[in-house]
Amino acid sequence: MTTTSIRLGELADRLGGRLTGSPDIAVSGIAPVSEAGSGHITFLSNSKLRHVAAASQAAALMLTEADYEQIGTDFQGVCLIVPNPYVCFARVAQWFVALNTPAPAAGVHPNASVAATAVIAATATIGANAVIGEEVVIGEHTVIEPGVVLARGVSIGADSRIYPNVSVYEDCVIGDRCIIHSGAVIGADGFGFANDKGAWIKIPQTGRVVIGNDVEIGANTSIDRGALADTVIEDGVKLDNQIQIGHNCHIGAHTAMAGCVGVAGSAKIGKHCTFGGAAMILGHLTIADNVHISSGSLVSRSISEPGQYTGFYPLAKNADWEKTAAIVRNLGTMREKLRQLEKITKNKE
Amino acid sequence: MTTTSIRLGELADRLGGRLTGSPDIAVSGIAPVSEAGSGHITFLSNSKLRHVAAASQAAALMLTEADYEQIGTDFQGVCLIVPNPYVCFARVAQWFVALNTPAPAAGVHPNASVAATAVIAATATIGANAVIGEEVVIGEHTVIEPGVVLARGVSIGADSRIYPNVSVYEDCVIGDRCIIHSGAVIGADGFGFANDKGAWIKIPQTGRVVIGNDVEIGANTSIDRGALADTVIEDGVKLDNQIQIGHNCHIGAHTAMAGCVGVAGSAKIGKHCTFGGAAMILGHLTIADNVHISSGSLVSRSISEPGQYTGFYPLAKNADWEKTAAIVRNLGTMREKLRQLEKITKNKE
Amino acid sequence: MTTTSIRLGELADRLGGRLTGSPDIAVSGIAPVSEAGSGHITFLSNSKLRHVAAASQAAALMLTEADYEQIGTDFQGVCLIVPNPYVCFARVAQWFVALNTPAPAAGVHPNASVAATAVIAATATIGANAVIGEEVVIGEHTVIEPGVVLARGVSIGADSRIYPNVSVYEDCVIGDRCIIHSGAVIGADGFGFANDKGAWIKIPQTGRVVIGNDVEIGANTSIDRGALADTVIEDGVKLDNQIQIGHNCHIGAHTAMAGCVGVAGSAKIGKHCTFGGAAMILGHLTIADNVHISSGSLVSRSISEPGQYTGFYPLAKNADWEKTAAIVRNLGTMREKLRQLEKITKNKE
Repeated sequence: MTTTSIRLGELADRLGGRLTGSPDIAVSGIAPVSEAGSGHITFLSNSKLRHVAAASQAAALMLTEADYEQIGTDFQGVCLIVPNPYVCFARVAQWFVALNTPAPAAGVHPNASVAATAVIAATATIGANAVIGEEVVIGEHTVIEPGVVLARGVSIGADSRIYPNVSVYEDCVIGDRCIIHSGAVIGADGFGFANDKGAWIKIPQTGRVVIGNDVEIGANTSIDRGALADTVIEDGVKLDNQIQIGHNCHIGAHTAMAGCVGVAGSAKIGKHCTFGGAAMILGHLTIADNVHISSGSLVSRSISEPGQYTGFYPLAKNADWEKTAAIVRNLGTMREKLRQLEKITKNKE
Repeated sequence: MTTTSIRLGELADRLGGRLTGSPDIAVSGIAPVSEAGSGHITFLSNSKLRHVAAASQAAALMLTEADYEQIGTDFQGVCLIVPNPYVCFARVAQWFVALNTPAPAAGVHPNASVAATAVIAATATIGANAVIGEEVVIGEHTVIEPGVVLARGVSIGADSRIYPNVSVYEDCVIGDRCIIHSGAVIGADGFGFANDKGAWIKIPQTGRVVIGNDVEIGANTSIDRGALADTVIEDGVKLDNQIQIGHNCHIGAHTAMAGCVGVAGSAKIGKHCTFGGAAMILGHLTIADNVHISSGSLVSRSISEPGQYTGFYPLAKNADWEKTAAIVRNLGTMREKLRQLEKITKNKE
Repeated sequence: MTTTSIRLGELADRLGGRLTGSPDIAVSGIAPVSEAGSGHITFLSNSKLRHVAAASQAAALMLTEADYEQIGTDFQGVCLIVPNPYVCFARVAQWFVALNTPAPAAGVHPNASVAATAVIAATATIGANAVIGEEVVIGEHTVIEPGVVLARGVSIGADSRIYPNVSVYEDCVIGDRCIIHSGAVIGADGFGFANDKGAWIKIPQTGRVVIGNDVEIGANTSIDRGALADTVIEDGVKLDNQIQIGHNCHIGAHTAMAGCVGVAGSAKIGKHCTFGGAAMILGHLTIADNVHISSGSLVSRSISEPGQYTGFYPLAKNADWEKTAAIVRNLGTMREKLRQLEKITKNKE
């Protein structure tokens, strides 16, 4: 990230911040306060690091008005006062990456297999050994990396990136500015069967997966197509790796799920929720907006009230766990003894 | 699902049902009672929906004898009386999908790589960029989609479908009418090592994976090959997405597992079992037939008796969980106090 | 494993063991004591099987000095006395597999896509439809199987094997003698976002994944690249299938994790640890060397002391679980009652 620089004036304009020094100074990269060098811009997002920021040799420092009042005069470089320095860090880091990453060449690799009826924007990139099915539509500047397979009728918007070896089944829809990581599978059949005297009869899964804009989907994550209606992932949803989303789920905008989460079929999850790693959500539940589920917790009932919810067995040394687990298994007995003691004690009073 | 229609008489013949009206009426699709239109056949599988079914504008209604006695005369269309309307829904939906889906063209795509000694049925389909190893055998009407890799000696029966980017390792066997979804890995090495003064020495995994007929395997699911003997998946097993099956497991016929389940090595699981999402089964256990494990439950011992088993920490608001978890950690102390109270109380009696 | 044989003298030399009979006898395979035939070598790693070993018709038996003193004279074949018969089993089995497996032909398959600036050792193998990016380096005797995609700048050492449909992102490093199974994804973006009034702003992930020597990575496992610094997997680590390793994790040498484990970002895990299946480790924790986590346990705090740790809710029949779970939810009430009883009882004393 060192070959191209950005003027502070340009950064202030883009971020809507206020500069305390020359807009003509240029920075060549961004780094945390503890690592930033003289050509860098850095940021103060945790007030505990004020003294480190104040002593930094960085050329520029993004910080809040409140932090500026505390340490602005101690810092030797230029301050850029912004409402949310951590968000600005993310944006500036994105710009440096974009400046330093050559755009992939537009066009179709000669080893790709593209169906005759596919419609691919002239600025899109199709990598080696990608397979593009009939009636697929791919938008401007979207990059389809090697080994991706898009089945018949898949539609992908503009400025999206589909990493190697992703599979997308028929008729699924992916929006603009989406990122789908390697190994993800979009639109496989939902898990639906009718039981006929012990044998399972497959129920055809004829819905789609419909993914909005600005969605990121992690490596080896699976999102099943709906049975009749669609599985829907709204705008801005972020899914980490190894996640399973069952058929007909509906995930509200800007909800984020950490790795290994599982969501069973037909769950309806609100907006702005977060799910810690390996949280599990049973099927046909409704989760309100702004619900936060702790890692490793199983959600077995609907949740209508925002807040943080948790349910995992506390870790202990194995010997201690053996002891408490044995008591947990017999809590009924313990409660009974307590009731009898209460009775005896009350009778005596 | 609207371009082709089926005569009611043909449906009654295939399903073994009894018609209450003209066999010459044709239906062009199937839909739930709440959505069915005038050209559709619908079904009543939940008696609570009797009144909705009775008022439906559908051309035909599949229902049980018992429900027919209640609402048969109210329904304006033709009734088709069957023993299990939900199973009939699955079958009819399959037929409509088959009618409306063009069969993939038989033959090998020019961009596929097929070894000279592979034996591929004339009616089979091999997609773009599929890689078929030496001595592979592929049966009639089986479809190998793009990007699938079948290593040396793999055998796949007839009428199976292997979705894009599936990997099957050497010598594994897949039966007839199987469906394997994208990203699934069949036959990777089991996790077997000997510890030599701290370092792990690999134990070669020379068994196979042997999969019966009518098995469905979900997206990104992994089934490891056996160490010496084979890993066996019997007929009719249904595995959802993101499942891990360890080496030398044996899964009995018609057992179904929901997403994110893990089964450690050498577990022997009976027939007609069900496992809820994210259930985990430890290695070398034996699970009887007709055992049902709830979602999120860890099975740490063998189960010899049919029934439903559960073991997950109940979800609560985080503050409440913090309180109960602290008590769980100290249940030994609580039990001790209870014992002392019992002693004191008894001494007084 | 029957076409080629090894002389006992050669085995004794390689293993550093002591023979009790002729070094010129040859064995043609290895099998457990209960299955070994007259041409086999077998091994006694569990003293409970002494009587089975003593009666074996195998040509040779690997056992410890202590077991030799007990049954050496009863066994009809040649004994090979070694310190660790199970490790010797692993090594001998590896040699038989190597003897019986034809080495893949070196060279690049005509259907592979190899960038002009990639540097591939003359003895390496590149399979059909593999895609090798610019500036990739591949060492001697390494095998890249079909459908593997290596992005720009990936480096892989010697004698490694990358199974079909693995994806490795830019600049990641894989050492010597590594095995990476199908569907694994190395170097996808870590899950890092800044929240801007409800919307998630992506933090670029510019670190790499750096994997040491002798590492094995299971099918469909994901290891994310670091945000700024690297994600590091040290020498000899063994990861099973369906594992998720978050960005900036550091996993110490010779640590082993069973299937479905999840490790959140920036966790620092020591050497020689083991994690049972589906164990989950929260982010930013530090785990000491020689820590062993039981299956299904969530690690929510750092662990500084070696030992075995456990935390999962014990399985029960569903009706029993319903009862104990209800009590767990109300443990606060139960403790309060106990306190009141204590008070009453003490007041009376």
